Amino acid sequence: MHGLMSLTAVGSIAFDSVRTPFGERERMLGGSAVHFALAASFFTDVHVVGPVGDDFGEDQVEVLASRGVDVGDIERVAGGRTFLWRGHYEADLNVAHTDDTQLGVFADFEPKLSEPSRNAEVLFLGNIQPDLQRRVRSQCEGTRLAALDSMNLWIETTREALVAAIAEVDCVILNDAEIRMLTEEPNLARAARTLMDLGPRIVVAKRGEYGAALFTGDTIFALPGFLLEDVRDPTGAGDSFAGGFLGYLDGCGAFEPDEVTLHRAIAYGTVLASFNVEEFGTERIQRLDAEEVTQRYAELRSLTHFDASQ
Amino acid sequence: MHGLMSLTAVGSIAFDSVRTPFGERERMLGGSAVHFALAASFFTDVHVVGPVGDDFGEDQVEVLASRGVDVGDIERVAGGRTFLWRGHYEADLNVAHTDDTQLGVFADFEPKLSEPSRNAEVLFLGNIQPDLQRRVRSQCEGTRLAALDSMNLWIETTREALVAAIAEVDCVILNDAEIRMLTEEPNLARAARTLMDLGPRIVVAKRGEYGAALFTGDTIFALPGFLLEDVRDPTGAGDSFAGGFLGYLDGCGAFEPDEVTLHRAIAYGTVLASFNVEEFGTERIQRLDAEEVTQRYAELRSLTHFDASQ
Repeated sequence: MHGLMSLTAVGSIAFDSVRTPFGERERMLGGSAVHFALAASFFTDVHVVGPVGDDFGEDQVEVLASRGVDVGDIERVAGGRTFLWRGHYEADLNVAHTDDTQLGVFADFEPKLSEPSRNAEVLFLGNIQPDLQRRVRSQCEGTRLAALDSMNLWIETTREALVAAIAEVDCVILNDAEIRMLTEEPNLARAARTLMDLGPRIVVAKRGEYGAALFTGDTIFALPGFLLEDVRDPTGAGDSFAGGFLGYLDGCGAFEPDEVTLHRAIAYGTVLASFNVEEFGTERIQRLDAEEVTQRYAELRSLTHFDASQ
Repeated sequence: MHGLMSLTAVGSIAFDSVRTPFGERERMLGGSAVHFALAASFFTDVHVVGPVGDDFGEDQVEVLASRGVDVGDIERVAGGRTFLWRGHYEADLNVAHTDDTQLGVFADFEPKLSEPSRNAEVLFLGNIQPDLQRRVRSQCEGTRLAALDSMNLWIETTREALVAAIAEVDCVILNDAEIRMLTEEPNLARAARTLMDLGPRIVVAKRGEYGAALFTGDTIFALPGFLLEDVRDPTGAGDSFAGGFLGYLDGCGAFEPDEVTLHRAIAYGTVLASFNVEEFGTERIQRLDAEEVTQRYAELRSLTHFDASQ
């Protein structure tokens, strides 16, 4: 559909049970690889890699396949249970609580990538154990732009492995609090520089409803989040952001992206994240169309450009 | 110096004793009216209104006067002590702690505005007791654009008076958490609409290091904060923001500002706030020059415009 470029996403494929002040859902489709892939599918061909259990249905696979996502590397583990996350949000949706996590088939996951997945130009290592990220990274010899997400759990429990994984990628995409935590530097701009000293040439700080900041060689870029009156469920927004960001870069063939392209990619990431949070789980992005993406990109421009005439 | 327009700022004139991870200062010049006036003085003529004690020196007055600020309505109370605030910040500078507040001459302050102050086109009611804000507002018959700041203390202790004060201004400038608290609405965009239902046609949400958002009739605008590697003291940043914002509007003669002018004003507010935090108290803004303001405005544009060519 999109052309010669493709992108591989490794991460959790999950059932999410979520409660927010605006409703709740049981065992809806979720996981970092799923949210990422759906968002990225608006820009390029995506291969999803990850394990599921017997309880994962054809309906769930079809959500991905109908967006053109290659599901050939979704590994169905006989007798296994799909990863499950249960959580809830406070009235202030910035505050999330995890109530239960069941690793299921993820406990023994050993990634096996097919040839197309290994040869994708862009690789996204979603938030999974850093040694697992490294084993995927080492299989992908065709990768020209590798990016990684992580979380506080791995910073606390497997710090050395995470630092090693970071050294092997070109781009890190983390929450701003996680960047500060990992580098033990409270100033975000300095923390991002510290992270770049580990290897990556691109650092993206996700800031929740406040948007995102981008750090490259010697420049900084930032956008606020797209302000919405209806936010129902923030689950997966960070992965949708990453999917919009890396999907756009891959779609452009921008494996060594210039500043202009990176800034547009941040804008597309912001746009995809904004749709993600409008409804529960993947509900909104499942029925999103390309025209809506283009329109909100233009709206984001109006929302942030203060001196377009000069 | 600036022309026919002028702006009146009422608020605290203070000594601030501040400790941050980057140093500490005893009894430095501060207060909402001071930070506001210094920032606004880059754009228009400013009258400062507020009381000080015998301990307030000519050096402090000179800081304002040397920026062209009219200090004729700074009321020196014989035998009184200047308002004092003592506080400190954590390694994460977003977390502030108040250690002491001594109202001093502010306890019995009854504002008396001179003719030039009463006739200024733009009025800024800094963060003081809402009934006091209302008494100032009622004196200013020449005002064409009145704006108000407040804080959690007044939301908690004098809510009705604050709501009455808000109904009498055109513009509210508050922290985003305060807007949510006052309206009891966790979604910022909805909270801003609720605030507009009370009277004001312009709502500005200050978001600390994350920048600011602007809500008008039916549109939303937002900018991230200017990302800096050196942030030493956030005290007064919100007032410098308000000073840049309203000072620019007054300097343009924009008393019923259009969207383009408002967006530029938000950018100038962001710029002035960014200089404020680089050093302690008023240290940086005291030696700021107009060229630096213009330059950072252009840098902010580069930091946030993702598609300037289209």
